[in-house]
Order: sequence, then structure tokens, then C-alpha cells
Amino acid sequence: MENSDKKVRKAAIVVHSGTVDKVMSALIIGNGALAMGLECTLFFTFWGLSALRKEKLNSLPLSRMNFFGLGRIMMSKIMRKHNVATPRRLLKDYKELGGKIIACEMTMSLMKIKESQLDESLIDSYGTVGSFVYEAKDAQITLFI
Amino acid sequence: MENSDKKVRKAAIVVHSGTVDKVMSALIIGNGALAMGLECTLFFTFWGLSALRKEKLNSLPLSRMNFFGLGRIMMSKIMRKHNVATPRRLLKDYKELGGKIIACEMTMSLMKIKESQLDESLIDSYGTVGSFVYEAKDAQITLFI
Amino acid sequence: MENSDKKVRKAAIVVHSGTVDKVMSALIIGNGALAMGLECTLFFTFWGLSALRKEKLNSLPLSRMNFFGLGRIMMSKIMRKHNVATPRRLLKDYKELGGKIIACEMTMSLMKIKESQLDESLIDSYGTVGSFVYEAKDAQITLFI
Repeated sequence: MENSDKKVRKAAIVVHSGTVDKVMSALIIGNGALAMGLECTLFFTFWGLSALRKEKLNSLPLSRMNFFGLGRIMMSKIMRKHNVATPRRLLKDYKELGGKIIACEMTMSLMKIKESQLDESLIDSYGTVGSFVYEAKDAQITLFI
Repeated sequence: MENSDKKVRKAAIVVHSGTVDKVMSALIIGNGALAMGLECTLFFTFWGLSALRKEKLNSLPLSRMNFFGLGRIMMSKIMRKHNVATPRRLLKDYKELGGKIIACEMTMSLMKIKESQLDESLIDSYGTVGSFVYEAKDAQITLFI
Repeated sequence: MENSDKKVRKAAIVVHSGTVDKVMSALIIGNGALAMGLECTLFFTFWGLSALRKEKLNSLPLSRMNFFGLGRIMMSKIMRKHNVATPRRLLKDYKELGGKIIACEMTMSLMKIKESQLDESLIDSYGTVGSFVYEAKDAQITLFI
């Protein structure tokens, strides 16, 4: 629990938002942290957990701020052209790099999300905010996205 | 000021957003941190401080992302059914657990919020961003919500 | 790289949002951190980087949450009246205080932002998420705005 000497650095990130730009940012930062040797836990809650449902992952909304006229289809085209991975691909990489995902139990209850609606190969555990705090209290990088 | 040896762990959270989902997340994380023995400071600023006004606390807007058709009334019903506390109740618990709240003076000036519009039993101090940085520089968990 | 003994405290902040309230918050927190002797790195990405384009800096949109009827012009008037600096002024102060800015290369590619559209006196380097993680892993304050 003490990380003063044996420094395994860690990132703990709350994924509260469900827009494709925010979910992508969370995964890109998570993958970057893992690639640089840190541990990483993503705590999916509220709209973030909702976006993780199997039927939603391919159709996440952009945030409201698409004022440059970048709609979703345009954005997908540009992403493909520039070899930016999709959220689904980023998630796969995240798990392969050893990233951990906690699904928020309160959100599942509030939004009536069933375990069967989530991809069980992605979820490491179902937990409360305590699970996030437990990881975050020893993490160097903590973010709310 | 140095927390290298006598580790009292701490969370310092900026509450910038004023939607009910974000204010609830801030309070749920704050309460979780306090319940696990950490200290916690919430720095309410911009829309977050605006949401803390006495007449607003019971009618916080959902974020724009209510695309599953969860309006505020529906959300309240579901929250009651699942025993999820309201923002007002979460605030009460937060204070009883020893949580600290700083109200942003710049926001009060910008948005013409008067001390009399805030519940004085909630506010520990009125401060600038320096008050937040002072807490955050020794905190293990720092979030911007 | 180890900051256990020689404590130079540091803040590392992702600026993902491009609304004036969020960009201002990032800069105000950054300036506060610098003024209190911390180092600070802002990693501008997505809408945050888009807002940093020279032609955008004076016309950043407010977040959608302007439900108290504070439009941009009104907000600017109030800010002037209360001596709150504009984003452009805050950026100037940030640089003069020694703050560091990294522009996200992936975003430049995705959103077709050219180096010539950014003010080169502001940008210290162009980097990937790895540049952010490198700074953040030794930072006491990490935020996603």
C-alpha cells in the first residue's frame, strides 16, 4: 500500500463522460501510461459506463463541441486516414497491455445496465467508488474525464 | 507541509461543473475518500459554485448527455428507488465526515454570488486558486470535475 | 526523474476542452501553481488545442451551461469590470511565469491544425501522450480539463 520506496507508478482515471472524444482520451492516456511502465486502472461510471455497453461502443456521440463541422462520420474517416485507432481497438490494446477496468456498480443499478450488456473480457471487477479511491490513493496520475 | 513521512493522505478536487451528475460524482468521490480515512477539500468554482446556491441545489440540470431519455424527474425517481442520495444529502454526509469546502472568490465576484446565497454551514472558507493549489500540492488524489 | 528527495513540485494538466471557462480555469490553475513555486506543464489536445489557434483565442465559446443568461459579451464585460484577465492575457502571464505548453501532435493531424496556425511563442514542444505521461508521473497535481 505504501509506495514510497518500491515505486510502481500508477494511473487511476475516472471515465465519467461517454462522448467518443473523452472515451478516446481516457484510453489513449491509459495506453500511454501502460506503455511507459505504469499500472493503470480505469473506473467507468455514469455516461462512461453507458458508452462501454456492447451495442454502444461503435456509435459514441461526439461531444456537443463539434463546431468545426466535424460530424461523427467525418471524424471516423479522418481517424482512419491518420491511423488513429477506434475506441474498440484502443480498448483491446489497453487490455493487452495489462490495463484494469472497474465498472461502477451504482451506475449499473441507476441506469439499469446488466452485466450481459458489457463485454466480460473487458471488465476486471464491479466496484463502488471505494475501489477507485483504493487505487487512486497510491497513484501518481489521477484524472476525472 | 511535507507529507513524505507522516502520510495523511488527501484528496483535492475542483468542482467546476454544475450538472447534477458531475456534482454528485464529486461528492460521492469526496465521501468515499473521507470514509477511507483521507482528508478531502472540494474547491467549488464557476458552474459548480453556482450550483451550490441554496435555491439551486434541488434543481440541478442533468448534463446535456441525457440521450437515453433519462430526464431529471425520471433520474430522481430511479435514484430514490435505488437509495442513491440526493446532492443535498451527499453534501450533509460530506460535512459530517469532516470534508472541507472552499468557495471561489473570483467566481462569486464574476457571477455576482453573495455569501447570503450560500449555506454558511457548508462553506469552510472563501479563497482563490492559491487555496486549491495549497491543498493539491500535497494531495495524492487531484481531480477537476 | 525521482522526486522523493529533491522535491520540485509539479503540475501536469491536460487541456482537452475548448470553452472559455475551461481554458481559463486551466490557465488560472497553472498560473496559481507557478506563482506558488511549482513547475507546470499544460498539454493542449482536442478542442483545447483547437482553441489555442491564433484566430480562435479571442472568440472562445462559453460552455453550453450559460443558463443564467450570461452570454459571451456579457461575460467579457463582467470580466473586465472585475479585472479578470482574458485567456490571451492569462497565456502571456503563464509563459512569463515559466509555464510549459505541449501541443498534441495527434490532434494537429486529426484536426488539420498547422504549426503556422499556432503562436510559436506559446508552444514549447509538439508531442504525443507520452510527453504528458512523462511529466505527469512525477507531478503532485494532475488534472484533465
